Amino acid sequence: MSMTTTMIFRLEINPAQATFGEVATAVNGAGGDIVAVDMIRAGKDTTIRDITVHLNLDVHRRVADSIRSLPGIRIVHESDSTFLAHLGGKIQVMPKMPIKNREDLSRVYTPGVARVSLAIHDDPSKAFTLTAKRNTVAVVSDGSAVLGLGNIGPEAAMPVMEGKAVLFKQFANVDAFPICLKTQDPEEIIRTVKLLSPTFGGINLEDISSPRCFEIERRLQEELDIPVFHDDQHGTAVVILAGLLNALRLVGKSLDSIKVVVCGIGAAGASCIDMLLAAGVRRLIAVDRCGALVSGNDYGNPALNRVASLTNPERVGGSLSDAIRGADVFIGVSGPGVLKVQDLQQMASDAIVFAMANPEPEIDPEIAAPFVRVLATGRSDYPNQINNVLCFPGIFRGALDCRASLINEEMKLAAAGAIASIVTDNELNDQYVIPSIFNEKVVAKVRDAVIQAAVRTGVARRHSSEYQAEDEMAGAAR
Amino acid sequence: MSMTTTMIFRLEINPAQATFGEVATAVNGAGGDIVAVDMIRAGKDTTIRDITVHLNLDVHRRVADSIRSLPGIRIVHESDSTFLAHLGGKIQVMPKMPIKNREDLSRVYTPGVARVSLAIHDDPSKAFTLTAKRNTVAVVSDGSAVLGLGNIGPEAAMPVMEGKAVLFKQFANVDAFPICLKTQDPEEIIRTVKLLSPTFGGINLEDISSPRCFEIERRLQEELDIPVFHDDQHGTAVVILAGLLNALRLVGKSLDSIKVVVCGIGAAGASCIDMLLAAGVRRLIAVDRCGALVSGNDYGNPALNRVASLTNPERVGGSLSDAIRGADVFIGVSGPGVLKVQDLQQMASDAIVFAMANPEPEIDPEIAAPFVRVLATGRSDYPNQINNVLCFPGIFRGALDCRASLINEEMKLAAAGAIASIVTDNELNDQYVIPSIFNEKVVAKVRDAVIQAAVRTGVARRHSSEYQAEDEMAGAAR
Repeated sequence: MSMTTTMIFRLEINPAQATFGEVATAVNGAGGDIVAVDMIRAGKDTTIRDITVHLNLDVHRRVADSIRSLPGIRIVHESDSTFLAHLGGKIQVMPKMPIKNREDLSRVYTPGVARVSLAIHDDPSKAFTLTAKRNTVAVVSDGSAVLGLGNIGPEAAMPVMEGKAVLFKQFANVDAFPICLKTQDPEEIIRTVKLLSPTFGGINLEDISSPRCFEIERRLQEELDIPVFHDDQHGTAVVILAGLLNALRLVGKSLDSIKVVVCGIGAAGASCIDMLLAAGVRRLIAVDRCGALVSGNDYGNPALNRVASLTNPERVGGSLSDAIRGADVFIGVSGPGVLKVQDLQQMASDAIVFAMANPEPEIDPEIAAPFVRVLATGRSDYPNQINNVLCFPGIFRGALDCRASLINEEMKLAAAGAIASIVTDNELNDQYVIPSIFNEKVVAKVRDAVIQAAVRTGVARRHSSEYQAEDEMAGAAR
Repeated sequence: MSMTTTMIFRLEINPAQATFGEVATAVNGAGGDIVAVDMIRAGKDTTIRDITVHLNLDVHRRVADSIRSLPGIRIVHESDSTFLAHLGGKIQVMPKMPIKNREDLSRVYTPGVARVSLAIHDDPSKAFTLTAKRNTVAVVSDGSAVLGLGNIGPEAAMPVMEGKAVLFKQFANVDAFPICLKTQDPEEIIRTVKLLSPTFGGINLEDISSPRCFEIERRLQEELDIPVFHDDQHGTAVVILAGLLNALRLVGKSLDSIKVVVCGIGAAGASCIDMLLAAGVRRLIAVDRCGALVSGNDYGNPALNRVASLTNPERVGGSLSDAIRGADVFIGVSGPGVLKVQDLQQMASDAIVFAMANPEPEIDPEIAAPFVRVLATGRSDYPNQINNVLCFPGIFRGALDCRASLINEEMKLAAAGAIASIVTDNELNDQYVIPSIFNEKVVAKVRDAVIQAAVRTGVARRHSSEYQAEDEMAGAAR
């Protein structure tokens, strides 16, 4: 996927050796488009100018090299709009109310705050009402599986976790804070998150590699009384199910009759299978690098063995090509190029293909299109983008609002149903089975459905009448 | 210290049994002043009203009881303005830039963010430029010594740490985030803070009990490359020294000639002694519960033994009353009532007394006043308030801006000098040796002095020319 960006080059130009015209010619010749020039300093021997250039990332090196090759020109600094957007970070911690005078100060800090602290000491559940815990989620990563970049470590993971925090706030008014841990030992991660938990009302695990992520999430959810949610697993699974519900609505098939192949049994694949089974799918074959998983075999990995034991009732063996014969649905959360046209040709009519590998899907969407009815990917440049942003803001908004102790399967299924329901019968078509992430109805619908499911399953610890009363009081006071 | 507050009582009134007039009479009779009434709901059998009452905290119980004693009235809920200010917490995590469209999204999140993550992976020092680390400080507490409340635990410490975060942002634009740890084991605290460190550019330790705080701070500062600062120790010490510098300026005495008694060798006392010695004080006697500390004795506590070895060159033994004979300066960071009028009468002329115990000073300021020249306390209702807010915002602002690897003694001394310098010769008097916390010059002066000291002592890792260039670029891009 080619990307355009805006670069700013700060140039030191020696007027005795070079003219600005030569720079412009070099930039244009290399494929860049100069959109602005700013004189920064004009000295006796040199001038400093910033030139702003639109270019495709592919030609960035060429543009920079062609500037550098000119005599009398030095690139002092270069930056692009993405990097500039990151300068100093993307989030800040803001007071909700300013301190204008001594009275404000004694309310939010000493001596007034002492009474609030004592109230929490007397009744620890008041921490959910009187502190930021009520609305704050930790976005926890160890940097072991960041985007498609792999194990790049906690410092390099920070921009991603900050970006996630931006999305949480913007889409659902959840205060999310990045916690990038300098350890990849599961026991240390578990221990650290537990020690941090007094500050937070929820834990969003992010970009932690499989299979460590399973144990870390399971243990934390058992040992903490706040929701713990590994978004790479469950966020992806929820949005895939949402898209699948609508695709089936379109082709007139039902969950309990279809045959599904899930390819790639990592974090997302395993959670996706759990959700599909919980939603009512009965004929499901899981395929990993070693081929179709069959119950009873030992795959040297408890996660794979567990999936094998739950799926493939007809005990189909062999490769993906064997497993996919007659399948109604293919869900790929694996790698590029795994799926072939011949495989598509073996699928049932009205084939539904979710090719989620990112940035390169399991099959090129242009090649696959003629052979399938509904095609979805993780990419924004094709129709039907499966994007976690449809899920995690609303699911945490709901869980925090009803003070859920965990996010259970019913809440995830409710979230998937809510996302699917945004697309009306009139709107539904092959190219539109999933709403846009900018659709403003999504978060509210997901939140409401999640709260209803939490109340129904007994994990909600706060009911709407309570927070309405509180909100009224707060409104009266501000 | 009596405090007034604004309470809101939500009342359910049964009109068959009670009238609102009776409520008003009861509230006024108990010492409350009704300033607003809001009808919330009027039902068939009951009405719900919010009454807003100004009252002194002393009479709060009496007002509530007198309402409760009326037939046909039920208090549904009561809250005061301090609690309402805390509802849902005092801080939020805000994006610096909104995501308005797909292009914004791909800049702050995938796919654009991947290039930023890779840049940090290639050069980890870029985390200071391209992530929130540059401006973010963790306010870390284990809840073991919160204000004067003692060991109330991490949940109850949260409102204090959030209040501190509010002050950091408001006074110095530092993004501070509360980290309240569910452990009081020093090794676990050290380990956890180290694991968290990729997210933060500095660590402010807060309300951790002595002597554990010494080891925790020392080890963290040794093992991390970002500043670690226990504000209860050093913030207090810096502001005391600032006040003392001005008090000495007023009475015409010099640091190297005065005799000082420091009473209470906890976190603040020990740091205060270190700073006074570093600033040039030679005749200093430390007094703890066991009396004046004398070098060579074993006090069963390494912190006390260390202080004894550094102080009291004349080896004065005995009680506070013995030690204070002829002292120019008394600094109390101990408890209420420790200091007597007879002790004051033993001091040298132009006695300077810092009675910092909070909320009740070592001696009642009204009683002490006739016997001393300069009197300072930690309280806002007397002149010369010694308040850490004068120090920590500016000292971290400076440390972050020059990317100091630590906050050393020279930087603290520079901060004290900067605070003192705000009070001009014309302004200086017995009642005004320390500026107000709302004095807008304080943070900038402290910051500049701290940066100069950091550069001079070689702990600054970034120089002003660099960040000016960066800031220009960021400005150009936004």
